[in-house]
Amino acid sequence: MSDNAAIAYARTNRDRFLEELKDLLRIPSVSTLPENKPDIERAAAWVAEDLRRTGMDHVEVIPTGGHPLVYADWLHAPGKPTVLCYGHYDVQPAEPLEEWHTPPFEPVVRDGNLYARGSTDDKGQLVMHLKALESLMKTGAGKLPVNVRVIIEGEEEISGQGIDAFIKNSPERLACDVVVVSDTEMFAPGLPSLTVGLRGLCYTEIEAQGPANDLHSGSYGGASPNPLFALCEVISKLKDADGRVLIPGFYDKVKAPTEAELKAWAALPFDEAEYLEKEVGSTSLTGEPGYGVLYRTWARPTLEVHGMPGGFTGAGAKTVIPSKASAKVSMRLVPDQDPQEIFVRYRDFVLSLCPKGIKLNVKLLGTGPAIAVDTANPFVQVAARAMHEVYGKDTVYIRTGGSIPIVAAFGEHLHAPTLLMGFGLPDCAAHGPNEKFALENFYGGTESIVHFFQKLGA
Amino acid sequence: MSDNAAIAYARTNRDRFLEELKDLLRIPSVSTLPENKPDIERAAAWVAEDLRRTGMDHVEVIPTGGHPLVYADWLHAPGKPTVLCYGHYDVQPAEPLEEWHTPPFEPVVRDGNLYARGSTDDKGQLVMHLKALESLMKTGAGKLPVNVRVIIEGEEEISGQGIDAFIKNSPERLACDVVVVSDTEMFAPGLPSLTVGLRGLCYTEIEAQGPANDLHSGSYGGASPNPLFALCEVISKLKDADGRVLIPGFYDKVKAPTEAELKAWAALPFDEAEYLEKEVGSTSLTGEPGYGVLYRTWARPTLEVHGMPGGFTGAGAKTVIPSKASAKVSMRLVPDQDPQEIFVRYRDFVLSLCPKGIKLNVKLLGTGPAIAVDTANPFVQVAARAMHEVYGKDTVYIRTGGSIPIVAAFGEHLHAPTLLMGFGLPDCAAHGPNEKFALENFYGGTESIVHFFQKLGA
Repeated sequence: MSDNAAIAYARTNRDRFLEELKDLLRIPSVSTLPENKPDIERAAAWVAEDLRRTGMDHVEVIPTGGHPLVYADWLHAPGKPTVLCYGHYDVQPAEPLEEWHTPPFEPVVRDGNLYARGSTDDKGQLVMHLKALESLMKTGAGKLPVNVRVIIEGEEEISGQGIDAFIKNSPERLACDVVVVSDTEMFAPGLPSLTVGLRGLCYTEIEAQGPANDLHSGSYGGASPNPLFALCEVISKLKDADGRVLIPGFYDKVKAPTEAELKAWAALPFDEAEYLEKEVGSTSLTGEPGYGVLYRTWARPTLEVHGMPGGFTGAGAKTVIPSKASAKVSMRLVPDQDPQEIFVRYRDFVLSLCPKGIKLNVKLLGTGPAIAVDTANPFVQVAARAMHEVYGKDTVYIRTGGSIPIVAAFGEHLHAPTLLMGFGLPDCAAHGPNEKFALENFYGGTESIVHFFQKLGA
Repeated sequence: MSDNAAIAYARTNRDRFLEELKDLLRIPSVSTLPENKPDIERAAAWVAEDLRRTGMDHVEVIPTGGHPLVYADWLHAPGKPTVLCYGHYDVQPAEPLEEWHTPPFEPVVRDGNLYARGSTDDKGQLVMHLKALESLMKTGAGKLPVNVRVIIEGEEEISGQGIDAFIKNSPERLACDVVVVSDTEMFAPGLPSLTVGLRGLCYTEIEAQGPANDLHSGSYGGASPNPLFALCEVISKLKDADGRVLIPGFYDKVKAPTEAELKAWAALPFDEAEYLEKEVGSTSLTGEPGYGVLYRTWARPTLEVHGMPGGFTGAGAKTVIPSKASAKVSMRLVPDQDPQEIFVRYRDFVLSLCPKGIKLNVKLLGTGPAIAVDTANPFVQVAARAMHEVYGKDTVYIRTGGSIPIVAAFGEHLHAPTLLMGFGLPDCAAHGPNEKFALENFYGGTESIVHFFQKLGA
C-alpha cells in the first residue's frame, strides 16, 4: 500500500487529523439553539479555513436566511467526473448533560473511540472528506484525480432551509455527476455499507390551550379543561399499542421493499437479542407485529412524541392546571409517502380528536421525503470497490431509519445520485448522550474516500 | 364604630399594615424549591418578629425535618376559650414567570387589588390574623379578649410533614377549643362565607423508563419503546373524555352531599356562563355530566396531570426517543375516600396499564384527606355574627375544591373544630400568574377577626 502516496500521507498524519477533528468538536455548534449562533459561525469558519489550507479554490462562507454554508471547489480535471462532497457542521443539542460520562464538547478518546457530540454525526465524517482531499492534494502536486465541489451546511439537524434554497436557486454552483455523503452508519464493525434507503421526516408541534390562565387544580379540577391531559388523550389515539399509526390513509402510499431486498436483509449479521440488550436496553422491543426489526426501522413509517413542555416540571409538587401545553411529535416516512400530504392527514386527524374545551394548533416544524438510491448506478460500484481496498469485504446494501432531507433535493435539482457512504456504527449514539466515533472508521473512512476519488479518476 | 377601639386602630393603621404585608410578599418563600430555603428562613423570622412586636408570649421559630414552624401564644384570659390561629408563610412556585404582568415578588396595588405570589394564599390572610391580634393588644392594655395560640407553617404547599409531626407529637402545645384558618375564598365579593368542606389530595409522580439511553428516533423509531408515549397511553386511560376517573373502586366510598346542602348551593349567586368566561376562559367547561359546576368542584373527586418532564422541551426540534420521562398526576378526593387506599388503587391500576418495553415506578409525593365541618358548632355561629358586623350580610356555608390537609389533623389530634374563615375571592388566581388579594378583604378580614375575638370573649 506504500506505493499509494495519498494513503501513505493519510496514515502518517493520523494523529494530526485527530487533533484537528477534536478542535472542531470543541465548538458547540448546536443549530437549534439561538444562543449557539456564534459557535455556528466559528464552526463554518473552521471548515472554510481547512479547505483553504488544503488548496481548494473559491472557498467561501455563504450567508443564508439561517446558518451559513461553506463552499469550495477544484475543477481542473477536464474529462473526469465531478463529485460533490456534502456534510454538516451543526450538531444536535447535548442534553441531558448529566448522562454524559465526559463533557459533550470536550472530545476524549477511550478504548479506540472518540467521544463528543458530533463525533459521528457529522463532524467526524465531514472531516474524513476534508482529510481525504488534503491527502490527495498534498501528494498530487496540488491536483485531485477528479473534479470536486464541497458544500457543508449548518442546518441539517433543524431541517434548515438555507441549503435547500441554495440548491433550488443556484443548482449550477453545485453541478456534479454524483454526490458523496458520509452521514450514515456501517451495518457492523468492519462491514463496508452503502445506505440505499432513508426514511423521511415530518416534525410537528401540537399546541393546546385550555383555561385562559394557569388554574389551581383544587379549585377548578372537575370544571376546567386541562391541555396537558388533552394532549395525552390525542397522542394516545395517534398510534395503537402495537405501534400501528392510526391516522386515516397514513399507510396508503407505503411501498414495500423488493423481495431481493428482504432476502438480503435476512442475510445480514443481525441478532435481535443483542440489539435489545446492547443498543436499546429496554425490557422488550416494540413495533408492528409481523415485521422484523430491520424492516420496522428501515421501511415502515412510525410516529413518536419527543417532549411535552408545559405545566410544572420542576422538583416536587405543584397543583396546577396549565393554561397551555404542547407536544413535539414527529413521523418517520418511507417511500412513497409525501411529507406534505402526510402532514395534512395528521393535522386533520389531530384536530378531529380535539377534546372538549381545548383549542389545538398544529404546527409543521420541518419535513424531508424518504429516498431510495438505485444500486445499479456505476458510482455505487466504484464506491464498493474503494471500500473493499480498505476493509477487504464486499459492501452490503442497507437502509437506515434516519433522515437526510438534502439527499432528495440533490436528486431533484442536481439530477445526481447520492452515495450514502457512512462510517458510523450502530452503537455510536448519534443524538444521544456519549456519542462516539470509532477511530478505525475515522481512518478507514478517510482512506476509503481517497480510493474512491482515485478509482473514479483512473 | 368609633366606640370600638381595636377596629378604629385597624382602620387608622391600614396603610402601615399594607406596607408590612408587602415586605413579607417580597420574600420568595417557595417551599418546593431547595434554592429558596434561605427565603423560607427569612419569612419565618419575619412572622416571629411581628408576633414579638405585638406582645405575644413564647414566640418561637421551631425547627422541623423540613421548613420551620412559628409559634406564639397569649394565655392570660382565664375562663375564656382558647383559639388557635393557623396560617402558612410558604407559597407556590411563581412559574410561568412570563405570564405575570408585574414580577411575582414585587407586590403592587392596581385597581384595589394587591398583586403578588402569596397575596391571597396565604400571606395576605395570615397577616390579617397578625394585625387583628396587634389591634386588640395595642388598644387593650396588652390584653386579648380570649386565649390565643398562633401556629404558622412553611410547608403547606408541599403537603409538608413538619407540622403534622408537631401536632401528633405535641398536641398539648396547640391545645385549643377552636382553630381559625383563613386560607379559603368568599363565594362572591361582599358575601361572607364559611367553608365547611374541603377536598383531599393524593399527589403522585409516575416515572417511566424505556431504552437505557436517549435514542435517535430515526434509527430506533419502530423498535424502541418510548416512555413519553407510554405515559400518554397510561394517563389517557385514567380518566374518560367526560372526566370520569376509571380507576377501579375509585368512587366506592364517595359520600354525596346532603339534600339540604345541594339546595343551599342551588341558591348561591353562581352564573355558569360568567364562570366560564371570567374565571376559566376556555372554549367550554368539562367534567362529569349530571353534576353542576359547584358539585363537580366541591364534592366530586377528580384527576389531573400537572406536568410531564422528559425528552426535549426546548425551542425547535429534536428527534429523540427519551430514555426516561415522568408525569405529575394528582387526585382531588372527597369524603369518605381514604387517600392511602386511593393511592394503592391508583398505583395498581397504573402498573396494570404498563405498555410493552416500559418500566413504571409510581411515587406518592403527598396526601391529605377530605374534611367536612359541622355547621351546628357554636363557634361557627360566632364567626358568622362577626362577619355580619363587617359585611352586613348573613354568612353562606360553602365548600371548596382545594385541600388544607392540616385541618384533618386538627380534628384528629386537637379534637377541635376548624373555622375556615377565608377572604380570598374566586378570581384571586392562587397558584397561578397574577395572584391578587382585594384590599377591601384584607381590611375587612382583619376587622372580622377582631370582631370574632371580641364576641368570643364577651
